[in-house]
Amino acid sequence: MARQLYELCGTDAERIFSPYCWRSRMALAHKGLDFESVPWRFTETDRLAFAQHEKVPVLVDGARVVADSWAIAQYLDQAYPDRPSLLHGQPAGYRFLAAWNDSVLLAGIGRMIVSDIPALLGPKERAYFVESREKRYGMTLEQVTADREARLPAFRAALQPMRLMLREQPFFGGQAPDYADHIVFGSFMWARSCSPLRLLELDDVVHAWRERLLDLHGGMARRAPCFGA
Amino acid sequence: MARQLYELCGTDAERIFSPYCWRSRMALAHKGLDFESVPWRFTETDRLAFAQHEKVPVLVDGARVVADSWAIAQYLDQAYPDRPSLLHGQPAGYRFLAAWNDSVLLAGIGRMIVSDIPALLGPKERAYFVESREKRYGMTLEQVTADREARLPAFRAALQPMRLMLREQPFFGGQAPDYADHIVFGSFMWARSCSPLRLLELDDVVHAWRERLLDLHGGMARRAPCFGA
Repeated sequence: MARQLYELCGTDAERIFSPYCWRSRMALAHKGLDFESVPWRFTETDRLAFAQHEKVPVLVDGARVVADSWAIAQYLDQAYPDRPSLLHGQPAGYRFLAAWNDSVLLAGIGRMIVSDIPALLGPKERAYFVESREKRYGMTLEQVTADREARLPAFRAALQPMRLMLREQPFFGGQAPDYADHIVFGSFMWARSCSPLRLLELDDVVHAWRERLLDLHGGMARRAPCFGA
Repeated sequence: MARQLYELCGTDAERIFSPYCWRSRMALAHKGLDFESVPWRFTETDRLAFAQHEKVPVLVDGARVVADSWAIAQYLDQAYPDRPSLLHGQPAGYRFLAAWNDSVLLAGIGRMIVSDIPALLGPKERAYFVESREKRYGMTLEQVTADREARLPAFRAALQPMRLMLREQPFFGGQAPDYADHIVFGSFMWARSCSPLRLLELDDVVHAWRERLLDLHGGMARRAPCFGA
């Protein structure tokens, strides 16, 4: 059975935009493992019943089914120990980075790009997405992102820990990327896949880091559909 | 030769207040290594000439001299591999946490407590400290901290990544503390040693985490002179 990764997309099956799916995409590439992308749309929960899970990514690796990007990363290191490690040391050591990413990057990016996402979706998923997100934010998606240009300086300032780290080493993982890089890169790929908003200034060392990630694995991420930002 | 740790204090040799010295104190206790604290004051750079370094902490371990808290942590793991590890996996994996700590915690705490520090110092060090810090901030120290109560909500909000992590595990290190805990704890000990300002609300999970650290090693840090905050 071929290795399959169920991934979130909209009407364009090539435009994978979930930050969690990008973590798993990068993780598979990091391990040098080929996979077939299986397009999955919001509301298609029935199609994930086999995994006893309601969200992507879901990895099917032969007879093994693994749901959740964090579980996938740990599974890949356990199942393929002879290939480059994703997690160095104990997984607990990555929890703070993941929490920083989720509370600072994902939350911050969401408030700047969420109104760009409905245009990527078919009618049924669009209705689900708009309703669920407007409920979450308590306002229309256009209202959420109305001041996004004004939010950019604070968002960029919040990346300062990355800049300090990048003075010492080119990747979260040190001299080479590891799963911490893929976690954070996934957030930037979410923005890049969904929105024309330019999150990073060209002279920012975080931009240079993102360029290095875009170049990995023969430019896998760089070739993905995006808005050029 | 006894193991010695040169540490920053003011007129009270028991009140060690440098966050970097606290990292090394906690690191030595983590390894179960006794040490003699050697009081060191700002401006006593001559006394560190033997270490070819101008700042504390400096560790003297038999014939070996190690300056800089980061180097000390790595040295301790290398020199005492049979004792509990400070760093799991590669040191590079701790760089982001350290950068977050320095840019969010140290910078944020400094702006709220710096005016409390001169009172701890003798006349010569006080003059040095006030002049150098007023130059750094571009204003008097009282001006720096004048709005500290107003800064507290944003500071507490910036701890959100810690709260998300603490939902999953009791320490940065997982089920037990590691050097990441000591880095962040050192920042809180700086505040606790210098200032009566209450940084954390009592029902904050970050407060509960700090309590766990205060209890380590028979309450070593809890017994240190503080202002009770």
